[in-house]
Amino acid sequence: MAEPRIGGDMTAAERVLDRADELASHSDLPDGIERVYLSPQHRAANDLAARWMREAGLVAWEDAAGNQCGRRAGAGDQLPAVLLGSHLDTVPGAGRYDGILGVLVAIEVAARLRDAELPFALEVVAFGDEEGTRFGTTLLGSRALAGTWQPEWGGLTDADGIRLADAATAFGLDPARFGDAARTPEELLAYLEVHIEQGPRLEDADRALGVVTAIAAAERRVITYTGESRHCATPWDLRHDALLGASEAILAIERVARAHGSYATVGRIHVEPDAVNVIPGVAAFSLDLRDETATGRDSTWERILHELEAIAVQRGLDLDVSSTHLAPEVVCAPELRAAFASGIAATNDRGSDEPMELFSVAGHDAMAVAAVAPVGMLFVRCRGGISHHADESVRADDVALAIDALEAAVLQLAAEYQPS
Amino acid sequence: MAEPRIGGDMTAAERVLDRADELASHSDLPDGIERVYLSPQHRAANDLAARWMREAGLVAWEDAAGNQCGRRAGAGDQLPAVLLGSHLDTVPGAGRYDGILGVLVAIEVAARLRDAELPFALEVVAFGDEEGTRFGTTLLGSRALAGTWQPEWGGLTDADGIRLADAATAFGLDPARFGDAARTPEELLAYLEVHIEQGPRLEDADRALGVVTAIAAAERRVITYTGESRHCATPWDLRHDALLGASEAILAIERVARAHGSYATVGRIHVEPDAVNVIPGVAAFSLDLRDETATGRDSTWERILHELEAIAVQRGLDLDVSSTHLAPEVVCAPELRAAFASGIAATNDRGSDEPMELFSVAGHDAMAVAAVAPVGMLFVRCRGGISHHADESVRADDVALAIDALEAAVLQLAAEYQPS
Repeated sequence: MAEPRIGGDMTAAERVLDRADELASHSDLPDGIERVYLSPQHRAANDLAARWMREAGLVAWEDAAGNQCGRRAGAGDQLPAVLLGSHLDTVPGAGRYDGILGVLVAIEVAARLRDAELPFALEVVAFGDEEGTRFGTTLLGSRALAGTWQPEWGGLTDADGIRLADAATAFGLDPARFGDAARTPEELLAYLEVHIEQGPRLEDADRALGVVTAIAAAERRVITYTGESRHCATPWDLRHDALLGASEAILAIERVARAHGSYATVGRIHVEPDAVNVIPGVAAFSLDLRDETATGRDSTWERILHELEAIAVQRGLDLDVSSTHLAPEVVCAPELRAAFASGIAATNDRGSDEPMELFSVAGHDAMAVAAVAPVGMLFVRCRGGISHHADESVRADDVALAIDALEAAVLQLAAEYQPS
Repeated sequence: MAEPRIGGDMTAAERVLDRADELASHSDLPDGIERVYLSPQHRAANDLAARWMREAGLVAWEDAAGNQCGRRAGAGDQLPAVLLGSHLDTVPGAGRYDGILGVLVAIEVAARLRDAELPFALEVVAFGDEEGTRFGTTLLGSRALAGTWQPEWGGLTDADGIRLADAATAFGLDPARFGDAARTPEELLAYLEVHIEQGPRLEDADRALGVVTAIAAAERRVITYTGESRHCATPWDLRHDALLGASEAILAIERVARAHGSYATVGRIHVEPDAVNVIPGVAAFSLDLRDETATGRDSTWERILHELEAIAVQRGLDLDVSSTHLAPEVVCAPELRAAFASGIAATNDRGSDEPMELFSVAGHDAMAVAAVAPVGMLFVRCRGGISHHADESVRADDVALAIDALEAAVLQLAAEYQPS
């Protein structure tokens, strides 16, 4: 059995950062990073990942949904696999590490373990779509792998009106065969994902790494107040101003969610008729609400809804709420949490302290993969908690520790593995 | 000297309402009323107004800016004029009376006085643009008449990119000659405008008519908060959410303006990046602030600004404020207020009560004409204070009283007139 190489392999870490830079050069944007599903940049990223996978001793292939895959050649051809990975697509104006770091760290670990004797196969995946930037629906790549691809997604269109099915054909895929990307529970023992935290909790705690306990439960809604569009000469007492209602509601959402420890974001708002001298008759805004558990999320929402209704009554407005996205929390498998905890402990991050545990507010591929395999996640400290932004930054020594911890976690699983 | 015909001429009132209906049929919209400057509908409206002016015994002509004008033929060709009128253009989705009522009532009064001996000339004007719907700049017609037309306005463009100068040419005007529409103070003794109130104060007081004391001072601003666009996984303590700042600001504006008796409307808002899962880094909104006086308006604004700044500090946001429109109050001339008061008294509206006085929150052509002549305004009750809306409505008996009061006001001016 191989031993994990603890101590921080800075050469490997620098290679990961260099590769992240190389991937960043493949962008749809002249200024800033954007790399979306089924684009020429996706093709370039897959080609790079395939080359690096092969250099790590993996057999590389692109699956039916455009995910770049790799598997240790020869070793355990018939065995179920431990799958390592994350995604290579980005939001517009992205940083260099969200998703990408997890793929590159996985490739490093595969390289380290190329000659190790393992009781399972080892695979790496670079998902083609997690962010949903191009077609508005997230996790397209990981949901294809998890067998939850919906055929009607071929009809999704991008901002230019291009259908996903046509983009897939242009990419070299057969849109009728996306379902073939599905893996079975029998094929996958576990999915391990390394990802930047996208938050400041590790940095605040002076930790390089953390074990993810769960991925937050989320719900997205569109909330609409309707009042009366009236001339701006209308006296205060006669106004039913939808934007004043929305303003109160947005502050109530902050107050309630904060008090309940939930995360709430109103990212979009628009008013009608949107004229400088007309009282808004309609104000519609989005709500993204997240909590460690669906129970917590729903409890916060109930309290928010109570406030929204009171505002509607008080201002003489109609209130309409619709749900556009609903996801329960995804709990990381206890044995995979333990493996990552042991991996972190092996890196001696902060000496004898217990490895830090934290839940993920952001969504990840692991949410989708959980439909087909137990999932575990390792968070890596990022500077200032900044993500989805050009200022996204990780430390090379943290990356070295992440490689060590992921390798150690895989070896821990190998040591404990009992074929069923 | 002629005597005013008090008692409510319902035939004339019904004719005014019928003509308002006929004008409403000339709309850019298949469903709803919109009639904008230099459009085919403007041409149709001018043609109708010209015909009605001629039927009222006026010589009719279109001035160099597309305003439809009329003047009592023969009588006092060399004398300065008392000018009656308002505008025929509309906002999108307009009612039938805003502006239009004033033109039609003026024509009725001219018809009544066609044989009256007056010490001044009598003119009627139907302005081509007050609302600014097409080119974004208001009072284009009345500012041309007032001699405050700016040559660069020829370069204003509409939503289709058509330049005002080209629209003028297509309308049959010479855009280089708009300045010729200017009248001189020597030519105009007074401007009297009848208009629906666009507010509920007359209705609340059970009055048909009211004397306008002044047209509100107004300022329009664009207020922008800038924070940080961050992933929605960002903890509350690290957020600098521009929309939360804007929401607080919009409520502060309501609270302060209401307490100070000013009118404030936030009619537009937009956020960036406007994504469901990104904290808004920028929130920009409009403010339309009005008060009976510029002093009152500025005092309210100082208090609002104080609150906006405190919000910026408290939330770690940058605040930027720019002014896009500034107008002082326009005070109606005391002798014209007295003439209208006497005109209302003559109609016996509410018996022996003093005629009601009120200031105008909305802007009117009289604001522009004030640059060249003393101005007076008479408000007519409208149902529910509703304006700029298809539900705009006036009572026929109120229209009859308005015709009587305007005629009486003109005769009062004639009785008191002392040529200089």
